[in-house]
Formats: sequence, C-alpha cells, structure tokens
Amino acid sequence: MDRYTIPPDAFLGDIPVRTPLEPGQVALVGTGPGDPELLTLRALRIIRQAEVVLYDNLVSDEIMALVPAQVERIYVGKERAKHTMRQESINALLSEQARRGRRVVRLKGGDPFVFGRGGEEIETLAADGVNFQVVPGITAALGVSSYAGIPLTHRDYAQACIFVTGHLKDGTCNLDWPALARPRQTVVFYMGLVGLAEICRQLVAHGLPAGTAAAIVQQGTTSSQRTVIGDLSTLPERAQAAGVRAPSLIIVGEVVRLREKLDWYAGARAEG
Amino acid sequence: MDRYTIPPDAFLGDIPVRTPLEPGQVALVGTGPGDPELLTLRALRIIRQAEVVLYDNLVSDEIMALVPAQVERIYVGKERAKHTMRQESINALLSEQARRGRRVVRLKGGDPFVFGRGGEEIETLAADGVNFQVVPGITAALGVSSYAGIPLTHRDYAQACIFVTGHLKDGTCNLDWPALARPRQTVVFYMGLVGLAEICRQLVAHGLPAGTAAAIVQQGTTSSQRTVIGDLSTLPERAQAAGVRAPSLIIVGEVVRLREKLDWYAGARAEG
Repeated sequence: MDRYTIPPDAFLGDIPVRTPLEPGQVALVGTGPGDPELLTLRALRIIRQAEVVLYDNLVSDEIMALVPAQVERIYVGKERAKHTMRQESINALLSEQARRGRRVVRLKGGDPFVFGRGGEEIETLAADGVNFQVVPGITAALGVSSYAGIPLTHRDYAQACIFVTGHLKDGTCNLDWPALARPRQTVVFYMGLVGLAEICRQLVAHGLPAGTAAAIVQQGTTSSQRTVIGDLSTLPERAQAAGVRAPSLIIVGEVVRLREKLDWYAGARAEG
Repeated sequence: MDRYTIPPDAFLGDIPVRTPLEPGQVALVGTGPGDPELLTLRALRIIRQAEVVLYDNLVSDEIMALVPAQVERIYVGKERAKHTMRQESINALLSEQARRGRRVVRLKGGDPFVFGRGGEEIETLAADGVNFQVVPGITAALGVSSYAGIPLTHRDYAQACIFVTGHLKDGTCNLDWPALARPRQTVVFYMGLVGLAEICRQLVAHGLPAGTAAAIVQQGTTSSQRTVIGDLSTLPERAQAAGVRAPSLIIVGEVVRLREKLDWYAGARAEG
C-alpha cells in the first residue's frame, strides 16, 4: 500500500475493504447532497486513497477538506449556462489521468447515477479500456426529504416516488406530465427552481388538484437549509417572496403535509 | 458525554457532529442495501452512541457487528407473511425506550423514508412527544444499480426514475400501470420477485415493448450479488431458471443495456 492508505483505525477496522482503489483506476464517487456526514464509509476510504481528485461546484468545501493535502485537485465545475469544462473534456481528462497509472477520484454531488451524468463518464472510460468503480451516494431526494421531515413514501399517501429533472431547456417543457400528474405518488424535481411556476401549472393542467401539497427546499441537509411549504397554487409565489435560490429541490405530493408533525432538523428554518 | 461516545479519531475529526444522539431521543437510521461500507458517517456515529438498538432482518450481521458490545439489542424483525412483531408494537417499544431516557437507535435497511415505514414510526413518536431524528440511507435502487453497472438515469435513455413496491397483496395488482409503462424512464420494483411475471405482463399490456430491457438483482451490493438480465418477455423464465431468491430488486428500462459496458463489480456474477 502507499502513502494514501487509510490510517490504522479500530473504528472502521471491522469493515473489510472490498473495493480498494487501484493504480490506473477511476472511482466515480457520489458525495451526497451537502452534509459531509452523509458521505459513505466507502466514499471516505476511496478519497483517502486518491492521488488526483476531479471535482465540481456540487461538492462542498467541507467534503473537499477531507481530501489529503498532498493530493492534486482539478476543478472541472459546471454551472448552469456557464460550463467551465465541457463534458467531453472531463471524460478525456479522467482517461488521461488513469492512463498515467494514477489513482483517480471523480467526486460528484449526490449519487453519480441519478442526474449526475455518471453513466456517460464511465462509458468513455469503458471505451478507452480504463478500469473504474462506482460509489453510490445519498441522492438529493433522499437526503433533503429526510432533513425536511417529508417521507417520500407512506402507506396512506404515496406508493411510489419519481425523480425527474426540472431543468427546462430554452423554456420548453419536455417532461412527461401525464406520468407525473398522478395521485398517490411523490414527485421530486431536481434543478426545478427556474421552472417552478411552469411545473406547478402543468401538474394542475394535467389533473392534479391545485391544493396538492408541495415544498421547495434550498440547500437541504446543510446548516443553511430553508424550506418553503405551500401547494401547487401558492408555492411559486411563496418561493419568490422568500427569495429561494439554487441549489433547491421541489417535492410534490400529499406526504409534504407530514412535515408539520415530522420536522426534526434543528438547522432548518420553515417559511411560507 | 458518556461511555458510548466516539473514540478520538483524526480520521473523522474534521467533520462536525451536527446531530448528536440525545438521551430520550430516537434516531431512525437507514443502513443501506447490504454492503456495510455504504453506511454513512452519520449512521456509524449514531450507532456508536446508542444505548439500545432495535433492528430487523434487513440489517446485516456485518452492520450489527458495528454496534458496541455493551449496547442492548432488540430484534423486531418482520418477514413476508410472518410478522415477528406488529408495527404498532415496534412503535410503542420505541416510545417506551425513549421515555426511559435512553439513547435509542432504530436501524432500517436502505433508506427509512423509501418503503421503510419510517414515516409511520416517527409519526407515533411525534404523537407521543418523543424527540427523534432521521438518518437517510442508500436506498436499494441506488446501491444495487451502482453495483450492477446500471445508471438509473441517462440523457440518451431515461429522463426519470420511479421507485415502486412490487409486493402485491393477495395476488391483486394495485399498481398504477399506465404511469409505469412509459418510455424514457427507469422503473425500479422493490420486493417484486413473487410478482415478477405479473409485473412484466402488465407493463407490456400497458404499452411497453416486450423487448424492453430488464434485470433482476439478488443480494445487490453484497459479495453474493447475482444479476440476471433479459427483457420483459424473457426475464421471468430466466430468473426462475437461475433460482433467484429474495432479497431482490427489479430494474426495467433501456438503461439496463448499459450494463454490458459498465459492469465493474468483481463480487458480481452475471447470468441469463
């Protein structure tokens, strides 16, 4: 083993390491929605073995602080309408670093296989013959709903939950609204803030009652978490009045009403 | 602090503890789909602070081995058609333990808010005036898909993913088939093994092509992971021929085809 191995530690000593990070291998690592305590043990162990880390703006400073000081860091951040590095360049960089025989970690916010383009990044690696592994993470829908006190499923209210991206290209709506506007399911919209009014309007137009409960949560799971509650008719105005900003997550469904009883996270402030 | 506090540890020392487990408080903790390395740091820390742990058969022996030896363990397992302890009794027991001023941990497989009845358990606690917190976990859909090399979303194949329970009561089908049988989404069925043939039949009857790719994964994320691949017309027979047993997860959607390129987990054996 090398200088980046994990220090001897009785705390984790009972858990076998099944997937060590090999030289020339890329680990695609989900880091969760924000709270660094939501990292998995496997993610932390892999990070401690890295020789180079590629990261973007969805990975918090607190998590980057866990990367050992001597590890090279490469910022490949992408922001909406301002792509710092094109996806193709990121993919090529991952391959190049691995081919140099380094232990490469690609950090992603949330889970790499849920709206993270993780599949695309490792498709390139596979095509290039580069060895890789995937570390799942707490996707925003799971983390944010837990910290907001909103169960995604509940026998009385929702038998299903569906995750979609609300990032509407050029103002057009290409979501499958008839599938989203169904009773007894919870719909979670990632990146939906810009389209919030349109999302609420379309769900009602496709059959959901205007009184269907809905929430928008800003910076969920962090100490800055803010939650605005309403329904499909009131949420857009309330979110605007509260000045909600990205990153945020929208949760639509009757389970949102449970928050009144189940809100537990002291870091949170309720509004609206 | 007390004897169950976490030992001094530079490894985790940089991460602040935002949600310590208080006396008289219940922590509802998701432990992920099986691989103990998929525990979150927060889950592990909470477990190390417990005075009593309630668990069921969805929590692996490897994870139970992380509970300090002196902590009381109470088995409240439920198995299909053989409820060891009724839900009401579990809820009452959690309240009772907390009222005695103990630090109580309720371990759940996967994520407590996704088909875990976590919402119901803490509703009772809220009604009883008991303090609680929720620790999200890697739900089976995330963990199993990562280890099976199947991205849940992908720009070319799936803009949405939907999680449902395939546990059909009394052989009847009360799922919202029209919402599930849509193109360009991935559907994950929890507990669907018994109903696999019916699930495939209904999806085709409601409009999905019989050639839609599908997979069933047994004991995903563990060293015993087994994956059977097929489509909606072939998967039931292949799963039966392979002798697939619970716990298992069914993934339906064109993303399943990516596994051929993205399968990375050495612990896995492909069949069918």
